[in-house]
This record gives sequence, C-alpha cells and structure tokens, in this order.
Amino acid sequence: MKLSRLAEETGVSITTVKYYLREGLLPAGRLLSRTQAEYGEAHVERIRLIRGLVEVGGLDVATVHRVLMVIGDPPKDRVRAVEAVHDALHVARPRTGAAEDVQERWAVTWARARGWTVDDADPLFEDLEEVWRANEEAGVQIDRQLMMDVCADAVERIARVDIASLPGESVAMARQLLLGTVALDPVIAVLRRMAQRQEALNQFAD
Amino acid sequence: MKLSRLAEETGVSITTVKYYLREGLLPAGRLLSRTQAEYGEAHVERIRLIRGLVEVGGLDVATVHRVLMVIGDPPKDRVRAVEAVHDALHVARPRTGAAEDVQERWAVTWARARGWTVDDADPLFEDLEEVWRANEEAGVQIDRQLMMDVCADAVERIARVDIASLPGESVAMARQLLLGTVALDPVIAVLRRMAQRQEALNQFAD
Repeated sequence: MKLSRLAEETGVSITTVKYYLREGLLPAGRLLSRTQAEYGEAHVERIRLIRGLVEVGGLDVATVHRVLMVIGDPPKDRVRAVEAVHDALHVARPRTGAAEDVQERWAVTWARARGWTVDDADPLFEDLEEVWRANEEAGVQIDRQLMMDVCADAVERIARVDIASLPGESVAMARQLLLGTVALDPVIAVLRRMAQRQEALNQFAD
Repeated sequence: MKLSRLAEETGVSITTVKYYLREGLLPAGRLLSRTQAEYGEAHVERIRLIRGLVEVGGLDVATVHRVLMVIGDPPKDRVRAVEAVHDALHVARPRTGAAEDVQERWAVTWARARGWTVDDADPLFEDLEEVWRANEEAGVQIDRQLMMDVCADAVERIARVDIASLPGESVAMARQLLLGTVALDPVIAVLRRMAQRQEALNQFAD
C-alpha cells in the first residue's frame, strides 16, 4: 500500500507516519520509484504498537526507539530478556544526589530483607528512593515500610501471572512483556481508585 | 518572608512562584507595600504539595487547580470526599465513541459481577474500556478477564490500607487520600517491574 493508505489504515496522520520513518521507528518501505514506496502489514502492525506505547504508556520517542530495538533482537536468555525490556523502558530521572549516599540506600536493604535477589546498581532502586523522597518532601504521611510491603505483596500476584503467561520464544516473549507491562500500569491505577471507593463504602458505612 | 526567600526555601524559581500566584494555585501574600508581599509557612507547604503533584504525579496545572479546590473544602461525608478527590484527579481523555455503545460497557458488567457498587456514569469505567481498547489495538495478547481479576485482587489489598490509614477529619482526609493516591502509583509501577524480575528468576530457573 502507499503511504497515504498506511496512514488511513492506522488512523494516524501522514505527517506522523513520515515522522516515524524519519526517526527510524518505522522501517522504510520498498521503493517503487524515486518518490514512491510500498508498505505492508508489518508497517501497519508496527504503527499500532508505537501508538499503544505512546498513548497508553505515555512513552517518549527516545524510549520507544530503545524498546523497539530490544524487542527486535532480545537476549536469548529469558531472565536477561526481561531485564533488557525493563532497562529499555527505564527513563532516567534527574537525581538530587541524595540517592547516591550509602545511608539512603534503604530500598536495597528493604528488597534484600524481602528475600529478593538484588543488584545494587539496578536503577529501579534509585527510582524508588527518589519517588519516596519527593513524596515526603510533598508532605505525604504514609508509613513507608508498611506500604512498601503491602504494595509488594500485591504486585507479586500480578507479576506471577505476567511472567507465567509469556510465550517461550524470546522475540514473542520480549514483545508481550513490553506491551503487558506498559498496558497494565494504567489499568492498575484505575482499578486502585475503584477499589478505594469500595473500601470507603465498606469502612465508612454508618 | 519575601517572594525571593519563599523561592529559595522551596527550591523553585522566582518565575515559578509568580506563575503559581498568577494561576491561583498559591494564595496571594499579605501586602506590605504596593510592590512587596509577605509569605508564610502555609505558602511553603503549598508549594511543596504542588511540586509533588506535578513531579511525582505528573499532574497538569488545570488538574492541580481542581484537586487543590477539593482538598481545601471537601464534602463532609467521607465516601463523597473520596469520590470528589477521584473526580478532581480524573483527566478526561478523548473518546473514540465506542465506549458510548451499550455493547461495549463490559467494564461495568465486570465490576457488578465482582460485587462492587457501581455507578454506570463513573468516568473510570470509560477509562478502563478505553485503555483496553487501545491495548488490543496495539496488539496486546492478554486474557483481559483473568488480568482484570488478578489486578483487582491485588489493588484491593492496597486500597484497604489506603482507606484504613486516612485521618477522620475531612480536610486532612482529602489531602492524604490525594497525596497517597498520586504518590503510590509510581511506587506500584516500579515494584511491579522488580517483582517481574524475581518471578522470571523463579519461573525460568534452569
């Protein structure tokens, strides 16, 4: 199909398709002439994937680029493939420097106490420490230890199903882990609000 | 304190403080002269709250404005106060129209089957339906029914603690619900990735 048809098929503008091509998110079409290229089903599927990552996941173009590279050629080892998807999804946040302090590495200590296998250098720990630092600065009064344990108990149930439902082949696996991880974050957030409402009804009933 | 001191104390720029004043996010200081105003601890606390909502929660200024109005004067009834905070946090998304279709209101049916007390008009249901529509369009292959149940089981555990730890007085309650809801979303997302990694180690171990 022509570029205009590709745009129509996927519901994005021609400008957006050209932008994806220019940014290397979308492979070039097969050249028919000096000014016209032919696109196929793989292009349609790729555009839908990008839209999902951008619209549902709120990923920026640089992150989309990284994750597409990883799911195109993931590590054969499945544990390493999971790590590679997480690393590609990870967006470095500006650090205050406090997280560098050994005294502040409480999240690593917490995860070890939980029995998790921990890599000190994992940027997710810095994310956690940074989020809680910002929360406390904003005046959040939550028992951090309690809520970390409650949330970890909860997400372990989700992660068990996330991982158990992955296909065995590594390219398909990396793709589904990526989509599943990004896709369920907003579902979890919305369901938590609904569950809060049910709990308010239960706990505050006269 | 003067405006420059207020900025220094909270670590934001003078331009940002002026912007918050102009947008009505921050109450005006007490006028000392035609060109100078005096700010107090309440201003410091308010700026820290706004920073948390913007930086951790990723809220836009219009949403911050709405939630500040609600937590300043929440409904006395605590169930209604919870709803008011959720409504203020809610950002309307563009709809495809499909969610209007009665056939498509599967999320309402799902919640009823779960035993939740359901208001059909609750925009959170449309959010859920819209997120899953986008997920499926992007090529996500997840058993929707299974994952909705797994996620709901998980978030109910969190919501129970969210609600049980709220103070009784309605202004303090609304503030803590707001902050706790916004603050834990990223914590939950990061912990889920960590838990996925642990599960990959458990399930894929040779």
